[in-house]
Amino acid sequence: MFSGAQISLYPMTDDFVGVILGALGALDPYRDRLRIETDDISTLLVGTPDVLFAAMRDLFVAAAASGKHCVLHATISRGCPGEPDDPICETPELTGPMAPLAARKVQALAAVASAPVSGQRAAAQFSLYTLGIDLHMDEIYGCIDFLKASGVFDTSKNFCTKLRGDAAAVFATVGEALLRFGPPAGHVTIDLTVSANSPTSL
Amino acid sequence: MFSGAQISLYPMTDDFVGVILGALGALDPYRDRLRIETDDISTLLVGTPDVLFAAMRDLFVAAAASGKHCVLHATISRGCPGEPDDPICETPELTGPMAPLAARKVQALAAVASAPVSGQRAAAQFSLYTLGIDLHMDEIYGCIDFLKASGVFDTSKNFCTKLRGDAAAVFATVGEALLRFGPPAGHVTIDLTVSANSPTSL
Repeated sequence: MFSGAQISLYPMTDDFVGVILGALGALDPYRDRLRIETDDISTLLVGTPDVLFAAMRDLFVAAAASGKHCVLHATISRGCPGEPDDPICETPELTGPMAPLAARKVQALAAVASAPVSGQRAAAQFSLYTLGIDLHMDEIYGCIDFLKASGVFDTSKNFCTKLRGDAAAVFATVGEALLRFGPPAGHVTIDLTVSANSPTSL
Repeated sequence: MFSGAQISLYPMTDDFVGVILGALGALDPYRDRLRIETDDISTLLVGTPDVLFAAMRDLFVAAAASGKHCVLHATISRGCPGEPDDPICETPELTGPMAPLAARKVQALAAVASAPVSGQRAAAQFSLYTLGIDLHMDEIYGCIDFLKASGVFDTSKNFCTKLRGDAAAVFATVGEALLRFGPPAGHVTIDLTVSANSPTSL
């Protein structure tokens, strides 16, 4: 298994470099469980989904604490056949047979219910792609059922689903979508955008 | 067929609203061929891929002309089984049988070679997802071959491919990736990030 994300942080302020540098310390508790590489477009995080989503959450919350309008975008992937297995990505959830869809929805809801509270409001939208299988829409519709019961569902949009709520619940919900939908060893990707402090936010 | 994109523009400046509003006029020439809806996270553009990519290019170039570090992100989709057919999306390229991969690469390269020049440098990265087919990696590797010959290929990264060059050639290249890879009537999506004026750009 190989899992990770290309993440970018966009603070809409003249001091965007300062906001980004000020937030990077939020990654420190995770550095021994992540491989991290940065270039001029994004930062690669390689690790298990639970560590990935906790690290993205803490980075986003730290940047949003600046009070500036901040957006985090992540291109997230697990199980891509073109990537080598990596020991840093080993996790029991992504091995073994695929449980029935109904059981996976229950597991996902239980995980979201136990998420911490960050105190930071966020709006988000994401698309889930389950690749290399014929019936990919069954998994996507199953995931949408879970999202509607997650407590942070906002609305369905063309090409994506929109969430709104505490940032920790939002990141936990998207993390469960990655972990529980599509075959455990399959290729699943997410295109995620999370926003805070937007002047046009509802 | 239903095709379109959820796009967001991120100018990294205190005057991000001014940069966005100042760039929106670039969409005017396309408004009769696009359906446009905006909320606090993104703007939906529905239309054929050629119109979509020309509109995104002109919007991005107009924002980047501010001289500020600007990023455009787009979640692009065609042929999603969950979306209704829409007459505004009808295009001959997305009907009929799938041509051999080699022929599609030649068509894509010819289209990129005839792209205009914008005068705006851009760096970009994107992921192509061909859904609902077993051999999705064949199409993705075929697309990567095309990208390496496109003139704007920069490097392969985990989960995505990075491009660099004139913004018009970059958008044309990603547009050809959407149009030519995956079955004509199939579900294909792209997660695209384009950046200009980054202080850490090479």
